[in-house]
Amino acid sequence: MNRLKVGVIGSGRIGKVHIENISVRISSAEVVAVADPFLDAAKEFAEQFGIESVSADYKEIISNPEVDAVLICSPTDTHSQYITEAAEAGKHIFCEKPLDLSLEKIQNILTVVEKSGVKLMVGFNRRFDPNFSKVKQMVDKGEIGNPHILQITSYDPMPPPPEYVAVSGGMFLDMTIHDFDMARFVIGSEVREVYVKANVLIDPAIGEAGDVDTAVTTLFFENGAIGTIANSRQAVYGYDQRLEVFGSEGLINVTNNTPDNHTHYNKLGSHGSLPLNFFMDRYTESYKVEIEEFVNAVVNNSEIPATGKDGLMSVAIGLAAKRSASENRPVKLSEILL
Amino acid sequence: MNRLKVGVIGSGRIGKVHIENISVRISSAEVVAVADPFLDAAKEFAEQFGIESVSADYKEIISNPEVDAVLICSPTDTHSQYITEAAEAGKHIFCEKPLDLSLEKIQNILTVVEKSGVKLMVGFNRRFDPNFSKVKQMVDKGEIGNPHILQITSYDPMPPPPEYVAVSGGMFLDMTIHDFDMARFVIGSEVREVYVKANVLIDPAIGEAGDVDTAVTTLFFENGAIGTIANSRQAVYGYDQRLEVFGSEGLINVTNNTPDNHTHYNKLGSHGSLPLNFFMDRYTESYKVEIEEFVNAVVNNSEIPATGKDGLMSVAIGLAAKRSASENRPVKLSEILL
Amino acid sequence: MNRLKVGVIGSGRIGKVHIENISVRISSAEVVAVADPFLDAAKEFAEQFGIESVSADYKEIISNPEVDAVLICSPTDTHSQYITEAAEAGKHIFCEKPLDLSLEKIQNILTVVEKSGVKLMVGFNRRFDPNFSKVKQMVDKGEIGNPHILQITSYDPMPPPPEYVAVSGGMFLDMTIHDFDMARFVIGSEVREVYVKANVLIDPAIGEAGDVDTAVTTLFFENGAIGTIANSRQAVYGYDQRLEVFGSEGLINVTNNTPDNHTHYNKLGSHGSLPLNFFMDRYTESYKVEIEEFVNAVVNNSEIPATGKDGLMSVAIGLAAKRSASENRPVKLSEILL
Amino acid sequence: MNRLKVGVIGSGRIGKVHIENISVRISSAEVVAVADPFLDAAKEFAEQFGIESVSADYKEIISNPEVDAVLICSPTDTHSQYITEAAEAGKHIFCEKPLDLSLEKIQNILTVVEKSGVKLMVGFNRRFDPNFSKVKQMVDKGEIGNPHILQITSYDPMPPPPEYVAVSGGMFLDMTIHDFDMARFVIGSEVREVYVKANVLIDPAIGEAGDVDTAVTTLFFENGAIGTIANSRQAVYGYDQRLEVFGSEGLINVTNNTPDNHTHYNKLGSHGSLPLNFFMDRYTESYKVEIEEFVNAVVNNSEIPATGKDGLMSVAIGLAAKRSASENRPVKLSEILL
Repeated sequence: MNRLKVGVIGSGRIGKVHIENISVRISSAEVVAVADPFLDAAKEFAEQFGIESVSADYKEIISNPEVDAVLICSPTDTHSQYITEAAEAGKHIFCEKPLDLSLEKIQNILTVVEKSGVKLMVGFNRRFDPNFSKVKQMVDKGEIGNPHILQITSYDPMPPPPEYVAVSGGMFLDMTIHDFDMARFVIGSEVREVYVKANVLIDPAIGEAGDVDTAVTTLFFENGAIGTIANSRQAVYGYDQRLEVFGSEGLINVTNNTPDNHTHYNKLGSHGSLPLNFFMDRYTESYKVEIEEFVNAVVNNSEIPATGKDGLMSVAIGLAAKRSASENRPVKLSEILL
Repeated sequence: MNRLKVGVIGSGRIGKVHIENISVRISSAEVVAVADPFLDAAKEFAEQFGIESVSADYKEIISNPEVDAVLICSPTDTHSQYITEAAEAGKHIFCEKPLDLSLEKIQNILTVVEKSGVKLMVGFNRRFDPNFSKVKQMVDKGEIGNPHILQITSYDPMPPPPEYVAVSGGMFLDMTIHDFDMARFVIGSEVREVYVKANVLIDPAIGEAGDVDTAVTTLFFENGAIGTIANSRQAVYGYDQRLEVFGSEGLINVTNNTPDNHTHYNKLGSHGSLPLNFFMDRYTESYKVEIEEFVNAVVNNSEIPATGKDGLMSVAIGLAAKRSASENRPVKLSEILL
Repeated sequence: MNRLKVGVIGSGRIGKVHIENISVRISSAEVVAVADPFLDAAKEFAEQFGIESVSADYKEIISNPEVDAVLICSPTDTHSQYITEAAEAGKHIFCEKPLDLSLEKIQNILTVVEKSGVKLMVGFNRRFDPNFSKVKQMVDKGEIGNPHILQITSYDPMPPPPEYVAVSGGMFLDMTIHDFDMARFVIGSEVREVYVKANVLIDPAIGEAGDVDTAVTTLFFENGAIGTIANSRQAVYGYDQRLEVFGSEGLINVTNNTPDNHTHYNKLGSHGSLPLNFFMDRYTESYKVEIEEFVNAVVNNSEIPATGKDGLMSVAIGLAAKRSASENRPVKLSEILL
Repeated sequence: MNRLKVGVIGSGRIGKVHIENISVRISSAEVVAVADPFLDAAKEFAEQFGIESVSADYKEIISNPEVDAVLICSPTDTHSQYITEAAEAGKHIFCEKPLDLSLEKIQNILTVVEKSGVKLMVGFNRRFDPNFSKVKQMVDKGEIGNPHILQITSYDPMPPPPEYVAVSGGMFLDMTIHDFDMARFVIGSEVREVYVKANVLIDPAIGEAGDVDTAVTTLFFENGAIGTIANSRQAVYGYDQRLEVFGSEGLINVTNNTPDNHTHYNKLGSHGSLPLNFFMDRYTESYKVEIEEFVNAVVNNSEIPATGKDGLMSVAIGLAAKRSASENRPVKLSEILL
């Protein structure tokens, strides 16, 4: 295959990142078409990278015979339809997470994709972060032996606006979904059971919108390992993204990235920088590698590193977590999965 | 009050630490009598510090009119009796943890102690560790605002011998009890509910003895905070004792102590030391401060920094944890407390 | 001024970095022309960014009326001529370091540039590294009071090829020149005197080529501060770039950047990553900010952050260092400056 | 040999440390006699450890037939005489540093000691610090290959009183002498040449007393390695004691010890503790191991880990440093040694 020709549906914040990465940093692919309802902004952005085909209608991407692969960066409620159409048109698909909030719809997507024979990758960008992928590699190489305990700390710098809380599916499907995927990814085993203790400690408005803002999740894996995820919607000191895995032969942990690594000592103590605060700064590298890996998997017809099933399972765990939090009892994945 | 005159019951490993600390480092107290069934060893040790009264019979301590305060460092199953007798003899009491494994017996102890008017302190030495007491001070000063999430990592370097597992009351009453106390101490609120997911991942013999070796505990506090404790009986890299508290205004964490702080860089990577491996090395300073605080509280008639109630609650949480692990459901403290 | 129109002379490794940064990341400038004797490679690279004017002859840049500013990324021995011609053509100039190895020639350059009224910036990219610029900001804000002692550790991952050693002007003018500039930059005072103790400990071939590979330099500043620079041509563990400044009110230090921040604990110890090994990875961000600052200074007619005088002084210190190393005595800058 | 019987001359701050360590922590030795002109204080202290022979006259130690070894913890100007008398009386000797400020007198001491056949150890306690001895061990094991560059950072928390500056021999003989010894110890090679750039930046009164308070020293070793020592009399953030050695196969560094290892994150940044501020806290462990090693060397008739020659060389380097600072030129040790 020559250079992979990519069409991008949705050139919002994340779509722009993918367009720039493919255009500038990935020599084996190029963006040939962009579709976004905000046509003028899309055109202006696309122009910088010499992309000529820009449309307000996503169908122009899907029907474009030049396009080999589609990147779906539009709102969650469009994913199911766009994936279906793209698969039927024989395009390979990269879709942002979550695939959908309904397990049934996701199952349908997976069936269509399988029939069509195209590749589908879900945008779990954190898998490609240098810190987390280092952990994955070391666990896979057996550097910590059998994994026994996983601890994820995942605190956002600030809560989303209340109106977003209402439509996002709640903290577990919007925010913790990344951690659920990371847990499965790192441990390499499915989750059997979930227990969540959650609370509203940041903002009562979040509780009124029917969501929580603080939670501790216990995951029990098929292989016997136990995981814990600590979540808060608001860490005043920034975006806190850490992980450690303890096993029979050792421990591996990764901490936050900071904008610089200075230490200042004065009479009062020693002082350093805070974690990178914005997820696009924190995960810059992961977005680049993610798309590179998608391109490579399509071009070389090799394995997709974040599959449709991964997309399905993270939503299933999220739904189990919601039920556990509301019923205050451990919930088995088998209660949730269809 | 002049120098506090102390009698020590039990001069095993931990009794020796207290004797040395009082004799050498605490000017406001002195050890005047020691009792231990292994009389020769006790005499030899006591001699180094010029202690003349050494006996095989603990009653000689309790009936010694010179003795102001008794240190009980004998096996757990003797605590209840010795505390009762010492209290009735009007001696102030320092007792190693746990006070007992039966809540009923502990309740009886507390009643006797209260009637007698003596002071009782429980040996939760970790409260006096420079790292953990720094956390406590900072939380109390409001440096992290309201505490929301507590994460304790507490891994032992190696499991106890199987025969000990059988009599110790199990991991939650023997090992995690320290973490339960630390959780209450740092958060400053009572635990309302406990959920435990536990497993046998280290040694099947531990499972056969009816215990677990790996566990993740979720604590839900009266003030709404949530805590998690990760436990393993065996960290091959040493004694891993870390803690962090996240709150509305920030985070504080403390990590392990190491024998030195070197970093070595070679072609393979950067390399440093492992955590101090032995609990007596790790907590050396805490043992000294603990006894100093006991002496101060008695001499100045001030508040005891680890009370009988603290001793009671940690056992109650331990019993709740055991029940939760065996029934796989959250257990309320109110189900356990008498 | 509209978008700054930039011509680039030399599209080797560093020229490419500038072209990409201006094209993709700096909206207030664009590259309109590139010149490089390796015409085919230059064309291929330029094409990616839609640059149409590509030539083998640098004169096409200098005579191009569309070009506002010239980036000189060609070998050191061409700098003097190209700067002179560009200045006379009224182009603003960004030139890679060193300006030249002869103080006389540099002086001539500065005179020409001053007469012509164009701006000249020297490529001391490290000034724009997030770590080092943080130090500079904090020192300038008085966070460490008056600076007393500066310590720079600057070890290369591997020595240059022997044939390069011969033409580079030697370690002090090729490698340490960055550290000399950093020393003046951070301390904010001129160097009065230099003492160097140097040796050949890495490769005898370097000594045979008349150079050294290991050195410790002492700098004495006009303001009374003292600096030390430790240099080696070969750190087997990677590119080691650290700095600390001690002052009347405190200390600030910065350490290396690493590809990830994992720590792995096993029976043998704790283990982490090595510093980023390649200077283009280590200083990626600095190259971007550097060119951005140049563009801003030209567009806004504001102060240049690394001036021709900075370029002159770093070479002068380098020449003093060479003399000190060969005569084993402190050498005053006043002996060197014309 | 049975338990080593030790007499201590001088029970000031450092004498007390040795007395406590021998009495409590070193089972193969005991203190049998103490001499100090402040007799009452000496008696009160000695009593705690059951030491009965306490005198105001050092001669009672030297003439005491029970005494096997003498610890000389009196002022520097008494060392020469006491060592001589103790050696002639056949006592093994541990003497605090410096042996004397005159090379001639030190040479005489060494001659007397050699003739007498007793062992002499000099109190370079830092050699026994866990951090620095780890560096020494790793260098000796070849973990960094051949050492090329040594960097010592050694800043005191506050300057001594001006009246002490006058009699101490100056910063190089009083403070840097520890670093000179450390440099020889770690590199395992003699110093051939010294260059010092020094200044008065802390307190003009120190300059008026004829001393400096800030210095950077370059050491050139016989084996070709180069060292640098950064000194200041006043680090407002505490006692700063760091060291790193760079070699053909890697780097090893050690940093400061802190009272705890907390990190606090709030809106303003991350914050930690300062280094241990007082040398007796910082070097607690080293004092214990130092005396233990002396006792072991005498009891087992094995090698002394800090010899009279070590005492001589550190003073010689100090004298070279003073001359270099005052003449602003590199000074060869051969100019100084008799």
